[in-house]
Amino acid sequence: MADEVKLYAAAVSPFVFRVKIALNIKGIKYENLEQDLSNKSAELLKYNPVYMKVPVLVHNGNAILESLVIVEYIDDAWKGVSILPHDPYEKAVARFWAKFIDDTCIPALLKTFGRNGNKKSDKEACDQLQILENELKVKGTKFFGGDNINLVDIAADFIAYWVGIIQEATGKTLVTKDKFPTLMVWADYFINLEVINQVLPPREHLLAFFKA
Amino acid sequence: MADEVKLYAAAVSPFVFRVKIALNIKGIKYENLEQDLSNKSAELLKYNPVYMKVPVLVHNGNAILESLVIVEYIDDAWKGVSILPHDPYEKAVARFWAKFIDDTCIPALLKTFGRNGNKKSDKEACDQLQILENELKVKGTKFFGGDNINLVDIAADFIAYWVGIIQEATGKTLVTKDKFPTLMVWADYFINLEVINQVLPPREHLLAFFKA
Repeated sequence: MADEVKLYAAAVSPFVFRVKIALNIKGIKYENLEQDLSNKSAELLKYNPVYMKVPVLVHNGNAILESLVIVEYIDDAWKGVSILPHDPYEKAVARFWAKFIDDTCIPALLKTFGRNGNKKSDKEACDQLQILENELKVKGTKFFGGDNINLVDIAADFIAYWVGIIQEATGKTLVTKDKFPTLMVWADYFINLEVINQVLPPREHLLAFFKA
Repeated sequence: MADEVKLYAAAVSPFVFRVKIALNIKGIKYENLEQDLSNKSAELLKYNPVYMKVPVLVHNGNAILESLVIVEYIDDAWKGVSILPHDPYEKAVARFWAKFIDDTCIPALLKTFGRNGNKKSDKEACDQLQILENELKVKGTKFFGGDNINLVDIAADFIAYWVGIIQEATGKTLVTKDKFPTLMVWADYFINLEVINQVLPPREHLLAFFKA
């Protein structure tokens, strides 16, 4: 039986995009089911009654939820290029940084680019990004994964692509090459990789969304 | 070379306890380094400069951080009884619920048992626990892991043991057998398992801590 793979998606979501990267790395064909987030489909609510949000991956009828859990599932369930390191310690390090990005960096960035962003939240977001900047600088590699991207690079897609567009949309510039030279070089490498580039949502589309 | 395993710990922490359960399941000998959380050791700060918190597991000089990441590391790095399911889908389901407990249930419980707890936060905490109650009821198994505990049961140690003690310490009773019959039967099974019982911090110790 051929695999049936469906992705409940929203083109503007960096969390959905993580899953699209993982699917593209593994060369998996899937049906993309774009969701209207203001009017969620009965199927999305059925598959994700707890959070009612995208992404949801449905593989042969089994629903998998939460973007990083889905990325690890894709790595487990399909052969091909690995997304997580094989070594248990390296794997734990990757999971730690991916969790750091989700729990700390992204909330700080969303807060400071939101309506109530202020100098204090600007500093908080920059402090968190500085930790990532230092980590990559100390590693001295092209990607968080080394020569190739891994879970951490994928988790950081919001920083690589979304933040620059949100800065353009809001006119607020916080994340620059001066302040975060290592991260900004990394972002450039990342978004220009073929495996990323092929699935990136168009810049104009995101810009219009964040301006609205 | 024999394994050198050190755990930077605090006896009152349900997050540290997760790691102690995993170490006990695998039968791993380790050095317990109890930390004074009001006066953190230079070693703890060296190993966990980002969050400066316990637990930290140091295995042959490698520091692993974040309780659920550590539990997965222990499962990866040592043979013996498995903590996570082998099937990729079952594994993803376990990770989803463990993350739900960390991101949603525990913050809601801590909030409502804290100084600013009110009727609204009580309802929020109960709503989240109800989702867990329903999940276990629908599964119809003794543990979230089935006949044996897995990552989800370990993640829920706070609900199984800490919540009852906090209720006694604060005089505020929210989580009862009437409201959450399935969860309360599960909690009883869980804390009476030998592998759990052997490492549980004494009830009186926790009670005194939360009263203070």
